[in-house]
Amino acid sequence: MPQRKLQVVILGAGFGGLEAAKALRHAPVDITLIDRQNYHCFQPLLYQVATAALSPADIAWPIRHILRRQANVTVFMAEVAGIDAAARIVNTNAGPFAFDYLVIATGARNWYFGHDSWARFAPGLKRIEDATRIRRSILSAFEEAELARDDAERERLLTFVIIGGGPTGVEMAGAIAEVARQTLARDFRRIDPRTARIVLIEAGPRLLPNFSEHHARYAHDTLAAMGVDVMTSSPVLKCDDGGVDLADGRIDAGAVIWAAGITASPAAQWLAAEHDRAGRVVVRADLCVEGFDTIFVVGDTVAVKDPAGRPVPGLASAAKQMGKYVGKLIAARVAGRSMPPFRYRHQGDLATIGRRAAIVELGRIQLKGFVGWMFWSAVHIYFLVGLRNRFVVAITWLWSYMTFQRGARLITDAAPTAPVD
Amino acid sequence: MPQRKLQVVILGAGFGGLEAAKALRHAPVDITLIDRQNYHCFQPLLYQVATAALSPADIAWPIRHILRRQANVTVFMAEVAGIDAAARIVNTNAGPFAFDYLVIATGARNWYFGHDSWARFAPGLKRIEDATRIRRSILSAFEEAELARDDAERERLLTFVIIGGGPTGVEMAGAIAEVARQTLARDFRRIDPRTARIVLIEAGPRLLPNFSEHHARYAHDTLAAMGVDVMTSSPVLKCDDGGVDLADGRIDAGAVIWAAGITASPAAQWLAAEHDRAGRVVVRADLCVEGFDTIFVVGDTVAVKDPAGRPVPGLASAAKQMGKYVGKLIAARVAGRSMPPFRYRHQGDLATIGRRAAIVELGRIQLKGFVGWMFWSAVHIYFLVGLRNRFVVAITWLWSYMTFQRGARLITDAAPTAPVD
Repeated sequence: MPQRKLQVVILGAGFGGLEAAKALRHAPVDITLIDRQNYHCFQPLLYQVATAALSPADIAWPIRHILRRQANVTVFMAEVAGIDAAARIVNTNAGPFAFDYLVIATGARNWYFGHDSWARFAPGLKRIEDATRIRRSILSAFEEAELARDDAERERLLTFVIIGGGPTGVEMAGAIAEVARQTLARDFRRIDPRTARIVLIEAGPRLLPNFSEHHARYAHDTLAAMGVDVMTSSPVLKCDDGGVDLADGRIDAGAVIWAAGITASPAAQWLAAEHDRAGRVVVRADLCVEGFDTIFVVGDTVAVKDPAGRPVPGLASAAKQMGKYVGKLIAARVAGRSMPPFRYRHQGDLATIGRRAAIVELGRIQLKGFVGWMFWSAVHIYFLVGLRNRFVVAITWLWSYMTFQRGARLITDAAPTAPVD
Repeated sequence: MPQRKLQVVILGAGFGGLEAAKALRHAPVDITLIDRQNYHCFQPLLYQVATAALSPADIAWPIRHILRRQANVTVFMAEVAGIDAAARIVNTNAGPFAFDYLVIATGARNWYFGHDSWARFAPGLKRIEDATRIRRSILSAFEEAELARDDAERERLLTFVIIGGGPTGVEMAGAIAEVARQTLARDFRRIDPRTARIVLIEAGPRLLPNFSEHHARYAHDTLAAMGVDVMTSSPVLKCDDGGVDLADGRIDAGAVIWAAGITASPAAQWLAAEHDRAGRVVVRADLCVEGFDTIFVVGDTVAVKDPAGRPVPGLASAAKQMGKYVGKLIAARVAGRSMPPFRYRHQGDLATIGRRAAIVELGRIQLKGFVGWMFWSAVHIYFLVGLRNRFVVAITWLWSYMTFQRGARLITDAAPTAPVD
């Protein structure tokens, strides 16, 4: 009778979870990968779905297809309800899953600094559904402005507020500016989309705190040249149906987008484990949760320091490194070997501002402008999953570059589908 | 002071409405084109969105972008609430629009023979949202089957029922068979998707009544060879959450798709006009509604006969001919000229069954099999709107042909987006 194989359960098929599964491909274990979606989403390009440049399917790929050739993985679509760490069981909406080793890679979600009600007015950008919702809110504002019968309402509808001056906020502001000034420029009769006001609001003293002062200034100036109002040192006091309140006044807006804060998925609650202010689980140097020798946390759900003592940033490359490390560590443990502690290696930061403008900081490689933008484009196409997606995204970008158009200008799911339409 | 231009209001930017607007491009009129969507949808390929082969944006294009160079058209996104024919006003959720000429091109919707409650269990295929909903129901059935813990439930989940043996039903049945037998074949561990049961149910004595007996037999045999259960002379008695009831028994199913009936949009109610059993407005030989000299109805909303006295079918090419005719007729009337009555010219019928199998009946051109399939593909790419869409669809089809894969296998919008996810 064959010996029962050790059960590894991985929660989440983002960058971290997928790498953990792959790193275990030669290990004599049974892997169960659980995600609430049936696809892996390439989050760095979600903002392009939100601004009608790409379709959801261009940046998402079925998890089970990615792993179809790895025979020791079974993929399930289910949602985690809780973890019984003592009994070594994950409870889900599709029943319990027993584990010998558990990898939690459930990522992060939008965080409104305790004001959950703002979520209704200022959608964030973590999931495909968020992206199509933001796309709908941006495109609908232009449609409603074309129909508006008074000037104040038209002006409100043509004001777009992006909250948060990190990479996502900068990318969204630049992309919305291009939608208004270029893509839609000649498509309306009563309004001139080029007159739209785009406001990027940052609570801190400058944009892009993770980048050099020099590059942050370049991003600020480039956005200003594209007609984006950049407001720094401006914390948002309130979001509501018609706009946002700041300390020095109110901005009425047709669409508000949240790029200001995220919090970890509730792994710390599931485990009743120690966590930091952003909800991230505090772990040992081997990414194992203190007190649970076979439970690991990776990616945006964990608080880890790099060798210099700085927090590891919430980047795809960091999640991948952690996932790969934990996969290898479990394989080593199963084989009776040990591994040195996790060591984060910062690969760099990239952000795009708009057409022909991006910033790249990869150690000695420091790029901006057109060269940075070409580099950014190439890197993102390289990291996409699947040949078709790479090809379609490359063609779509080339076409957009030449025509100023965007291929996915659809307002969908405006209301729940009626039983009989 | 310039004379007030005549106001032409067109309701609906499907094939008929768009052609009517284009045919008026040189007329000295102001055109208002109203649609509840911001895009024109290429309905003949909706089934490919429903079966994960194409993305919504590949078959949809912003209406205002299509017409951006036609200065006498203003496009609004709004929903018709009613028509005051005597006062010549269309009422919408965005206010009233006055007209001198009105073209109603609002298409058709799913019709459940009076059993509106079936819509919840058996979605039809008229809109983008219908297609993504059907895609979700098909892909979710496989995901749930992988999780199922008993055999009967697994068998139910892997049974797919398509109701209606016209072109849409045949195309859906063939595409679902390919999804199960090819695309998903190696992606699961506990189930074998190739064992899925696909049942095509037709109330009448044979498939594809609009095609020749010979081609209908070919479609029947091809589907059977692909492993589709084709059941003719089998009216459906009831649809519910778990399947369908037929006269000679019940079929438990994981997903049911409705392709059996449509009814006209409610133009006849709006006008209190004479209509046929399918709700289509009865019109004069110039497509004008009896009693309303400046109100025209085109496309799937109208009941017209061809020169031989047969009803004009609900095809894109028929809607286009009618739209173009009415546009020209209004232009002629404005110029003080008249036009002969509308004369439908049947261009032909096409339907695809699956990989390398389609049937084509275009007068003397009678094709089937691989040649028919190549012809079908070329025609559909030709009629798509926009160079990018043609290119992307051509590449995606080529890639699918070579790899048996489908590029849009996403389960989205499974539940309304939670405020904080």
